Amino acid sequence: MVNNPLQYFFEAKSMAIFGASASWDKPGYVIAENFINNFEGKTYLINPKGGEILSNPVYKSVLEVEESIEAAVIIVPAKYVPAAMEDCAKKGIKSVTIISGGFKEIGEEGTLLQQRIDETAKENGIRIIGPNCIGLFYPKRGLDMVFLPDEKLKRPGVGGVSILSQSGAFGSAFLDVMGSLGNGNYLSKFVSYGNASDINEADILEYFGEDPETKVILAYLEGFMDGKRFIEIARKVSLKKPIIAIKANRNEAGAHAVASHTASLAANDAVTDALFKEAGIIRAYTWDELFDCMNAFNSTLLPDGNRVLIITDGGGAGVMASDVVGELEMELAELSTNIYKKMREDLPPIISVANPIDLTGSATAKEYLYALEQTIDDPNVDSITYIIIPTPPAINVKDLMEGLKPYAKTINKTITFCAIGGAEAVYIREELEQMNFAFYPTPYRSVYALKKLTEYADYLKDHGQKLPVLRETPK
Amino acid sequence: MVNNPLQYFFEAKSMAIFGASASWDKPGYVIAENFINNFEGKTYLINPKGGEILSNPVYKSVLEVEESIEAAVIIVPAKYVPAAMEDCAKKGIKSVTIISGGFKEIGEEGTLLQQRIDETAKENGIRIIGPNCIGLFYPKRGLDMVFLPDEKLKRPGVGGVSILSQSGAFGSAFLDVMGSLGNGNYLSKFVSYGNASDINEADILEYFGEDPETKVILAYLEGFMDGKRFIEIARKVSLKKPIIAIKANRNEAGAHAVASHTASLAANDAVTDALFKEAGIIRAYTWDELFDCMNAFNSTLLPDGNRVLIITDGGGAGVMASDVVGELEMELAELSTNIYKKMREDLPPIISVANPIDLTGSATAKEYLYALEQTIDDPNVDSITYIIIPTPPAINVKDLMEGLKPYAKTINKTITFCAIGGAEAVYIREELEQMNFAFYPTPYRSVYALKKLTEYADYLKDHGQKLPVLRETPK
Repeated sequence: MVNNPLQYFFEAKSMAIFGASASWDKPGYVIAENFINNFEGKTYLINPKGGEILSNPVYKSVLEVEESIEAAVIIVPAKYVPAAMEDCAKKGIKSVTIISGGFKEIGEEGTLLQQRIDETAKENGIRIIGPNCIGLFYPKRGLDMVFLPDEKLKRPGVGGVSILSQSGAFGSAFLDVMGSLGNGNYLSKFVSYGNASDINEADILEYFGEDPETKVILAYLEGFMDGKRFIEIARKVSLKKPIIAIKANRNEAGAHAVASHTASLAANDAVTDALFKEAGIIRAYTWDELFDCMNAFNSTLLPDGNRVLIITDGGGAGVMASDVVGELEMELAELSTNIYKKMREDLPPIISVANPIDLTGSATAKEYLYALEQTIDDPNVDSITYIIIPTPPAINVKDLMEGLKPYAKTINKTITFCAIGGAEAVYIREELEQMNFAFYPTPYRSVYALKKLTEYADYLKDHGQKLPVLRETPK
Repeated sequence: MVNNPLQYFFEAKSMAIFGASASWDKPGYVIAENFINNFEGKTYLINPKGGEILSNPVYKSVLEVEESIEAAVIIVPAKYVPAAMEDCAKKGIKSVTIISGGFKEIGEEGTLLQQRIDETAKENGIRIIGPNCIGLFYPKRGLDMVFLPDEKLKRPGVGGVSILSQSGAFGSAFLDVMGSLGNGNYLSKFVSYGNASDINEADILEYFGEDPETKVILAYLEGFMDGKRFIEIARKVSLKKPIIAIKANRNEAGAHAVASHTASLAANDAVTDALFKEAGIIRAYTWDELFDCMNAFNSTLLPDGNRVLIITDGGGAGVMASDVVGELEMELAELSTNIYKKMREDLPPIISVANPIDLTGSATAKEYLYALEQTIDDPNVDSITYIIIPTPPAINVKDLMEGLKPYAKTINKTITFCAIGGAEAVYIREELEQMNFAFYPTPYRSVYALKKLTEYADYLKDHGQKLPVLRETPK
């Protein structure tokens, strides 16, 4: 990878924090603490007040620092940002993230301020992320500009998903959910880019596309600074890794909301749909869809066809899942004859060996595991959705989870899981997430996830690509 | 209410349990225990083995009981059910619920068995629920035929929602979710009716329609035994209380699944859509939609128009919610001028007093409460969705929840809540559910709920009805 400006942000060996604060309730404190505790590079705290933060010296000006500094994050009030930028220029800092708000998004006065920092940047070859954003988070290197303490935002650990988010609030909420999920190890890199004064959605997508640590890309967009380039880049990137994107601000009501939020224009939503589809971008319309796709692409394999097998113990759940298979234009798989015959012989007559395989209310953990064991290698089955209603009396959910553990490392079939109910369903969810399986709370969502995986696999095949392996085997 | 057969099932003063068992892992034990511990009527345990269960005598035959008995539940193997029915006839029992499976749903042999019990019933004026079901649950009277122990299925407490479910597994999973939700007090009456050999979906709907304890009706259907009558009854009932129904088995794939499940025919789904709409039935297509509607109709008021106000601190969440308002053909409310002016004066300029009201990342609990206080009585606002991103540093979510508590008893505006994130969002959810507010995990779902409430309110107004008060004020 050459010359993508993001590289210098994420790989910076030294970072100046403009606005580092000694008051524990200030964003400038949280960021300083993040860097002091976790950053694998060198941190320089900058604040005209001087003093110390957590026993680290605070420089009154960045110009007092003798060593050279590669990057900076600025969290001073908007009116002081131009001066901080001037100092960055003098110090030779080339990669600056501006968290501070109070720019283009607040009207004319802020627009003028933003123009001033843009000019300083251009004159001095400085690249900017922001302003009006929550900046970068890269857990692998402890590079963490998120100004929210851990009790407000649970940081996800190192994984293969990278996120670009125009909205800071959306991004922070998504990080919090990721960090609270399963083993929490989901994130490669996060960029909140706010007003995108310089670096925009297209630059970030390009970087994630080339970044070998990024396996799955998520985007939250409300508008485009450079839509044409974004689509051109997506067309290439989507052949290597999935891009799942929300493009909010879809209609007049949405545009009304954006006017008071980040500066961007409402585009024709049908055009967005068509462009995304053509460029291989998987479009999510809701939070749940984005989450469900993230979970699927991060946790299972791509299927080589659209034939779905449903394994369940709940007749109703099986019917509802089958409805979704039909509605989303997939097919119910037909078991290979030899597998069907063996299962029919082995299982009691009350169990329906069809599709769905309905283990009924008399299901046991052993039968559940048997059904998976028999069908997992059936060439007539492209994907499996495994829907557990834990209420039947004979199912020992602990035995079932123990029995699934070996599959977590060896499974070579696309599979999604679902459990419905109260406490035992919650337990199943936690266990399966720990195994890095894709878990969904409803039949609809577990089949929807299979559909999105299938669509992307079809896109890749239509474009002459092999299906990449996205799932990380848990250690 | 006169002559609805369900009345005699739910109000029975005495119950015989055929198949009561002393083995704690048998359904017959769980049901016996349920009745012994909770039933406010008299319980008679029947098992040819005799003996005792939990210190209660077991009769070898129901004919040994001297007192008269009103109702029975049968959980013996299918082949013994005809004899149990004969005994019921001799004893003069008129309301019989048959849990046992092994009838029409397993093919010819079972169909013959089912015919035999039908004949006994007709000759003796006995009404039947089932077979192949999980029967009745009526927490108010401790009438609980659910054969799953508490650790498998957390029973909901007494509330205003009544449920009819063709699928036992679906019904049990839904009960488990209800029992695990908020204060758990949701349920009036539950009927799983399985094969509907006698009493069917139309009878149950009619009963719930006339039952003064039932405020909201939920249905899970895969087919109809008497679709014409169901729709006719729904047309009347829906003018008094909301009916929210899943009709699964919607397409060829779904029908494929039903063939191996409960006996019923796939109807044309578009016809179902049209009939439901005309009869005022709120159709849910997925588990989430059914749950979300239950939650909305049980927990808030019906709105008198389609003008939605969004209050949030997350720009992205506001845009996404606005998108949904547009997509679902509602309107963004415009605040009354005097209210707008006061708020604009009182709040800092960074807060956008528009729609959405965007409290931004600097939001405090006080500002959140202020925004609600100011707008709650605005006649230009028909409903509010209140979306909390708890990550911003200045929001004290505990203060916010404390401040919302007084509204739980006094609120007279339609409102849905949403919180997105990790641990603090979970806390908010639990607190709001305790207050009996309608909580949703995403902006889409919180606005979808408003749409369904609005549609139903419009239906009532179009049919000359006043808007009923559905929300129970918590004690």
